Amino acid sequence: MGGDQGPIPVVAGMARVAKRDPDVAFVVHGDKSQLKKRIKKYKALSTRCEVKPSTKVISMDIKPSIALRNGKDSSMWSTIDTLKTGLANVAVSCGNTGALMAMSMLNLRKAAGVSRPAIACLCPSSNESGFNVLLDAGADIKADERDLLCYSILGTKFAQNGFSIVKPRIGLLNVGTESHKGRSEIKNAYNLISENEEANGYNFIGFVEGTDIFSDEVDVIVTDGFTGNTAIKSSEGAAKIIRNQLRQAFTHSPFSRIGGFFAYTSLRRFFKRIDPRRSNGGVFLGLNGIVIKAHGGSDPVGIEAAINLGVKLARSKSF
Amino acid sequence: MGGDQGPIPVVAGMARVAKRDPDVAFVVHGDKSQLKKRIKKYKALSTRCEVKPSTKVISMDIKPSIALRNGKDSSMWSTIDTLKTGLANVAVSCGNTGALMAMSMLNLRKAAGVSRPAIACLCPSSNESGFNVLLDAGADIKADERDLLCYSILGTKFAQNGFSIVKPRIGLLNVGTESHKGRSEIKNAYNLISENEEANGYNFIGFVEGTDIFSDEVDVIVTDGFTGNTAIKSSEGAAKIIRNQLRQAFTHSPFSRIGGFFAYTSLRRFFKRIDPRRSNGGVFLGLNGIVIKAHGGSDPVGIEAAINLGVKLARSKSF
Repeated sequence: MGGDQGPIPVVAGMARVAKRDPDVAFVVHGDKSQLKKRIKKYKALSTRCEVKPSTKVISMDIKPSIALRNGKDSSMWSTIDTLKTGLANVAVSCGNTGALMAMSMLNLRKAAGVSRPAIACLCPSSNESGFNVLLDAGADIKADERDLLCYSILGTKFAQNGFSIVKPRIGLLNVGTESHKGRSEIKNAYNLISENEEANGYNFIGFVEGTDIFSDEVDVIVTDGFTGNTAIKSSEGAAKIIRNQLRQAFTHSPFSRIGGFFAYTSLRRFFKRIDPRRSNGGVFLGLNGIVIKAHGGSDPVGIEAAINLGVKLARSKSF
Repeated sequence: MGGDQGPIPVVAGMARVAKRDPDVAFVVHGDKSQLKKRIKKYKALSTRCEVKPSTKVISMDIKPSIALRNGKDSSMWSTIDTLKTGLANVAVSCGNTGALMAMSMLNLRKAAGVSRPAIACLCPSSNESGFNVLLDAGADIKADERDLLCYSILGTKFAQNGFSIVKPRIGLLNVGTESHKGRSEIKNAYNLISENEEANGYNFIGFVEGTDIFSDEVDVIVTDGFTGNTAIKSSEGAAKIIRNQLRQAFTHSPFSRIGGFFAYTSLRRFFKRIDPRRSNGGVFLGLNGIVIKAHGGSDPVGIEAAINLGVKLARSKSF
């Protein structure tokens, strides 16, 4: 209910998943009459959709602490609760990130040995899996060296279970790869992550820079939530302006329109590959349960991608 | 001398500028015989190039403090000195950023009223000027609220003088636009920048996110050097993978190659517009002199862009 466009794209995204995947069922939370009306529109959803009514909606700009205090009757709380009771295997939301993390932590609890949960994002790369994992993408705005070690371990497990990478390569994000660069907590983290390499089954490759987030030299990029969030959003901004300029290049003159006509299938393939909606979804790591946060402004294609990611993780038995 | 590829691309870039711009002359610093040999290859450079010999080279991985202590006979020091004595109007280097900033601060001194100099980067945008200004892009890894106010004022002057924007729109980079988000120093900076709006002639639009760096809703993006550096480099990484995928899309099959043939001029126009070499150059703001830092790995096109930016700023009388 709480995403930028309410339940309409959510139900439409569910329908897209249901059409292609016969073994997925849904428990959907929120305004009962509104949801039932939307669900009715899709034949694929009719027999595998349960509606759990809830009255409150967590708005996008509410503080997590206030959401926790007043949010017990909300669709978000009900969603996490369904995961807690085992009725659902995955929770997906495009609502308020901070509130979702706070409710998830309170209800699902941190997994054993985890000091701080994190949000992992998938970044397109030329690695075999097609993705690199970046964390933390914004669960917390600060991270000390122990948190960064914890993120390395969480990222390792995610890469192992989600992408079958036996020994993931971990890179610590910094402003340069030289050892004297960066803040003191990052230098301390460098040593701590290095010391714990063998015990945790990762391959620590040292400092990486922003340019390496999409590189095939690394599998997991570890950073604090402030930097991670900015890195992801900056890349999205860059991709957006590049897409616009490509469109402009092909509508620049009648001749370039003709070029665009002949290049249509190639351009379509390209736009599909770099479509940010298709790598939609931050995964909450370090909790007793799988929670996926989709973009607040997700359209049906974005919701579909977020649900598919959750389904994939739920099906990987070891996750 | 100290860039990733030594003096070869530097002299070639100078030649590109010299060919197009008859009113630019050069003082070039480093190994005399090596430089003279390179310069001889370009007719355009022969009569407007002075070589100042220096023996030492500041390497890319040396600490700024050590560069300051031992670097007096280096090509970098000699370059800054030429600016200080007024023999040159602009200094351009593709060497070690930290060392260049340290030498610039020591020799040129901070301009009146500046608490901390910053590196400004140009980010492509759909604004009229074609660019947004982001600072700090890595002069210092930390910034408190007074530094962020200082960056707002430096960015304002740069946008006014470099892009003729009368009242630049300033955005403070954060993980969300809601006022409760972000670290405490950023919330304090919000208030401080807001209070000083009228006195400094900018229009403070509040928090912006990573996606806004390339947006046309803002002219100047203010952040600490760690975050700014990561944002810039992440965007570069994203642009790089997008370029590769576009190339792949047009070589995917014989048919897509034909499409690529017809789309050639449009694609060329596009690649030229998003070519990162063409917005090469971080500008050091807040010093008594114009220093431009080009990418360490700059090729001749990148060096040309950095020199052109310096020439443009030197010609704008009010800079």
